[in-house]
Amino acid sequence: METVSENRCFGGAQGVHTHASIATGTDMTFGLFLPEEAADGPVPLLWYLSGLTCTHENAMVKAGAQAHAAEHGLAIVFPDTSPRGKGVADDEAYDLGQGAGFYVDATEAPWAPHFRMESYVLSDLTELLFDGFPLDPGRQGITGHSMGGHGALTLAAKSPGRFRSVSAFAPICNPTNSDWGRKQFEAYLGSIEAGDAHDATNLVKAGALDAPILIDTGTDDQFGDYLKTEELAEALATRRTEATLRLQKGYDHSYFFVSTFIADHVDFHAEALWR
Amino acid sequence: METVSENRCFGGAQGVHTHASIATGTDMTFGLFLPEEAADGPVPLLWYLSGLTCTHENAMVKAGAQAHAAEHGLAIVFPDTSPRGKGVADDEAYDLGQGAGFYVDATEAPWAPHFRMESYVLSDLTELLFDGFPLDPGRQGITGHSMGGHGALTLAAKSPGRFRSVSAFAPICNPTNSDWGRKQFEAYLGSIEAGDAHDATNLVKAGALDAPILIDTGTDDQFGDYLKTEELAEALATRRTEATLRLQKGYDHSYFFVSTFIADHVDFHAEALWR
Repeated sequence: METVSENRCFGGAQGVHTHASIATGTDMTFGLFLPEEAADGPVPLLWYLSGLTCTHENAMVKAGAQAHAAEHGLAIVFPDTSPRGKGVADDEAYDLGQGAGFYVDATEAPWAPHFRMESYVLSDLTELLFDGFPLDPGRQGITGHSMGGHGALTLAAKSPGRFRSVSAFAPICNPTNSDWGRKQFEAYLGSIEAGDAHDATNLVKAGALDAPILIDTGTDDQFGDYLKTEELAEALATRRTEATLRLQKGYDHSYFFVSTFIADHVDFHAEALWR
Repeated sequence: METVSENRCFGGAQGVHTHASIATGTDMTFGLFLPEEAADGPVPLLWYLSGLTCTHENAMVKAGAQAHAAEHGLAIVFPDTSPRGKGVADDEAYDLGQGAGFYVDATEAPWAPHFRMESYVLSDLTELLFDGFPLDPGRQGITGHSMGGHGALTLAAKSPGRFRSVSAFAPICNPTNSDWGRKQFEAYLGSIEAGDAHDATNLVKAGALDAPILIDTGTDDQFGDYLKTEELAEALATRRTEATLRLQKGYDHSYFFVSTFIADHVDFHAEALWR
């Protein structure tokens, strides 16, 4: 692992690190905010998964999460959204290939060799983080935006007991039923049906989410038709899952929306992680 | 004036607008955050002047100022740092020409036709803002980062009585005595001496700053030698000017530093602007 940069920030430090990932077979870059309290011992860790076209950097510089993480003594990790670089498959579309890993392990050519973001997040980066930094594996939460909201919800469902709290900003809720999902599951996994196991609405219907959930989505989200929030809303209510879904009047899909509500999300996670 | 974008943000709206500037003879772009309270009548305005290489966008997306402005019912304007585009002079160096206007009105070729950022901020954009938006001209504060901190301090000194409060993040304090200043004054104004009237330390020595001042600068600022903070510190103390200068341990020149202390700055301005 190599540290690319480290900046003092809210009494702690915002680092950027690269490492050779076994899962993706590429060098991967991530951001890690460590609060001041990390100098004295392990702190809870909040995962922030980003959306389409993003790198590790977007949320790290635009979401404003560090202010609130510092208040609560939480670390935040900002992984990249896909493998990148020469020799890594890509597509001209913004929503497939590099920058659009969808948090699954691809099984199909040309994606299978490197596009293994589920394993990257849940195993590879996890081991690196808990081996290399003062972080408490017993206190993890997960959040994300858009495709990263899909990632947060589905990866939490795939890791029972691991994440104490799950939240999402404008998540893709039902990708097997959306243009943000069908194309990607066909490409990465060979069929839309193979995406059923990576669909938050399906997972909620199956009772697979065991942590409290907070979701914010804007009523004026320009990608609202892709998100299928209504399907997840129905599933949560039907299944009587512990969850808060807030439809925020006038907000869109941008980081101005995310930054507006990031304090509430960090507070929500802090409550679960320090309990 | 044309609105490029508008995003709901902390109950208000973050807009981006372009207009044909009389001062620069070019189209200029600026960001304007309006808090919810602007729907009911004029609100105070905080100017945020950005540093070298920045556009209107950097602070708008990275400083996290809107959260705190919304709390206090303040608007914030984020002007660009220079004229731009075809037919506008430029230089290969990052610290001269486009992105490096230094908040002066150039008198020398090839800069004089368009590089008129002092007039742009103090007159042209000012008129546009107070004509077009619900802003209270009697309640203005000004802040900025690095070159923009220089701009905040010097433009406030040039406008006695206009700004109720002045603050800066890692400002260039004594540009006639620095590589961030001497080259630019020679290019834009024809001599270093012509920069004396645009040098915060000189202006403080002359008693030209009549508003309370808050300055934060990191002890680990990688450009610390260019800032000449010590010269301004001495001048403020000698002149017994109302000011708070904080040297923040371990912080550098980045937006991670700015975002860490932006809440304190917005609070400082709000106290002066709502008095």
